[in-house]
Amino acid sequence: MLAQRTQGVRPFLAMEILERAQQMEHAGADIIHLELGEPDFATPACITEAGKAALDEGLTHYTHSLGDASLRTEIAAYYRRRYRVDIEAGQVLVFPGSSPAMMLLFTALLNAGDEVILSNPCYACYPNFVRYAGGIPVEVPTCEEEGFQYRPEDVAARISPRTRAILINSPCNPTGIVMEPERMRRLAESGPLIVSDEIYHGLTYGGAPEHCILKYTDNAVVIGGFSKAWAMTGWRLGYLIVPRTFVRPMQALMQNFFISANPAVQRAGVAALRLADADVSRMRGIYDERRRYLLRALPELGFSIPVEPRGAFYMLINARHLGASSLELAFDILEKAHIGITPGIDFGTQSEGFLRISYANSLENLQEAMRRLHAYVLKKS
Amino acid sequence: MLAQRTQGVRPFLAMEILERAQQMEHAGADIIHLELGEPDFATPACITEAGKAALDEGLTHYTHSLGDASLRTEIAAYYRRRYRVDIEAGQVLVFPGSSPAMMLLFTALLNAGDEVILSNPCYACYPNFVRYAGGIPVEVPTCEEEGFQYRPEDVAARISPRTRAILINSPCNPTGIVMEPERMRRLAESGPLIVSDEIYHGLTYGGAPEHCILKYTDNAVVIGGFSKAWAMTGWRLGYLIVPRTFVRPMQALMQNFFISANPAVQRAGVAALRLADADVSRMRGIYDERRRYLLRALPELGFSIPVEPRGAFYMLINARHLGASSLELAFDILEKAHIGITPGIDFGTQSEGFLRISYANSLENLQEAMRRLHAYVLKKS
Repeated sequence: MLAQRTQGVRPFLAMEILERAQQMEHAGADIIHLELGEPDFATPACITEAGKAALDEGLTHYTHSLGDASLRTEIAAYYRRRYRVDIEAGQVLVFPGSSPAMMLLFTALLNAGDEVILSNPCYACYPNFVRYAGGIPVEVPTCEEEGFQYRPEDVAARISPRTRAILINSPCNPTGIVMEPERMRRLAESGPLIVSDEIYHGLTYGGAPEHCILKYTDNAVVIGGFSKAWAMTGWRLGYLIVPRTFVRPMQALMQNFFISANPAVQRAGVAALRLADADVSRMRGIYDERRRYLLRALPELGFSIPVEPRGAFYMLINARHLGASSLELAFDILEKAHIGITPGIDFGTQSEGFLRISYANSLENLQEAMRRLHAYVLKKS
Repeated sequence: MLAQRTQGVRPFLAMEILERAQQMEHAGADIIHLELGEPDFATPACITEAGKAALDEGLTHYTHSLGDASLRTEIAAYYRRRYRVDIEAGQVLVFPGSSPAMMLLFTALLNAGDEVILSNPCYACYPNFVRYAGGIPVEVPTCEEEGFQYRPEDVAARISPRTRAILINSPCNPTGIVMEPERMRRLAESGPLIVSDEIYHGLTYGGAPEHCILKYTDNAVVIGGFSKAWAMTGWRLGYLIVPRTFVRPMQALMQNFFISANPAVQRAGVAALRLADADVSRMRGIYDERRRYLLRALPELGFSIPVEPRGAFYMLINARHLGASSLELAFDILEKAHIGITPGIDFGTQSEGFLRISYANSLENLQEAMRRLHAYVLKKS
């Protein structure tokens, strides 16, 4: 009844887990949510206050369709300061979240049959964006031993005349792995446009390197946003950094399909970049404490993690010894241990038998979850 | 360089006028802007305060992907109260503006080659949405004498096996015309899905009827939003009301491509529907005063308006006696009279030789604009 392209868009399995968890909560169950990709922190006060002040100033009208000049300038300055890459404010396109940005990007990039190289596993939405735009997701299998990172030689082997882009994501959802700079450099040199989803930048631990793709090539689009490191999911503020030649044609699309992003939200984004370093650092410290706790606790329960996840707030843990179907396992853990966990199959066939744990939840809740998981594992064996 | 579908998306001519006007302002010129489709009012305080209170409450996380339940319930109640149509909250899908809503709607509706019937003239973005989704805009010419409204028999003649939808828009951009109920009923009975853009509802004058398409058929999608009647353009809050069978497949798309709308903005939308009737009424009164002024002043300057525009904040005036090209005329008026006006050709070939005047500007500015236009017309003749 709806168009063919809608058939290629699969709902998240994580949402099915969440919906079942909410049903159980409705019936009185106490569920610990480790299935969500959303910071548990409130947005830092300095950001929220800037948003409110913008409303008081009457910033309730459209901005420029590509984004407010002050935010775009601030983002460009941030990239110079943080990554020593030189971009112009004019290359920054502001959207109501990085997801709508990706939707516009892929529909603007792909003709029917164009290929986009994706890692398997990867964020569940990537293949959906590609298919919705009429493209073909070309999966490169990766392996647990390398933290599910691309091998550049495997990527090279999948490049064809129809390859429009290679999608990379570091720090990575669902693995939490930060890509080694040498892999990034080799991918950047492999030829096609690199689309680099850097939404988890700002959340790396233990001195993990955090490089922007633009350090290695100009033939790249950066996907960025404020949701994760600044705990601004609900605000809906994301951006693309695009090659100069993309700007004018993308502007026509943005004028037509988005008109503009919210000016008060954009002002809050300026405050985030100017004022919130200490807040981001505080949240990062807390995430890291949780991460280090899980890195000790999970192996003790029998879950192997061969490469240390040093970014985002996820771990992808091997649970094959508990069953072949991660979806069945995730539902079983929910029903019996009252923990919401995302099944690995949500992210690709290579992570079947794995589970994604989000530590965007308090240490106390993580500790209780590990107690419940321990009891579950004991009963199962 | 970008995909083929981007070629079908034309930038607004109104934006070219605006950019040139801004250049002139930079150089010191005093321009009166009558080219913009944006209320000149600030958002009513009761709405802004609700948005700020939501931020104070910490509403900075995702909501349900289809929208917050309280807003969807409030919208459904509003339709019952205002139009006596019975919709469920579950049919309301909330977006960051009605433009992104339309983008998702048309890409979800149209397979390559599917046809959408549009009036000529119509809002400049409609054919862009349709072409971007791979569809074919099928234009039905309308005439000045009927206020550029569809003749249902002309529409019937263009329906084919590939017709996926008929797009209607009342009150209408660019004409300001409110569609007669009998035309609406006959279109609703013509067979295809009706996509009814009701974004200017709430802004009708002189007792013009304001009917929701759902009064005439369930085989319809309503496009609605808060930008116009509530002066909330910058907030980015729009919605679709869809047939029940659309909800589940649209949810998968919204989960993937939008995640959620901003919770504080959605709370502001609830306040708009609950608290802002008096504000809307006040702004409507002011628009009407300006409208009545222009209905007297414009004919005195030689511009004919055969059907009274009784909605939105636009008039489409016949300026053929001043030149065949509305684009040249609009630039000439900008350069010589320092008034920004949108050329009729932006909306279709049928309105070539016309100009769209927006009265989202103060009566004082409109009076000054008419003085300037008078001097311009005198010199020209």
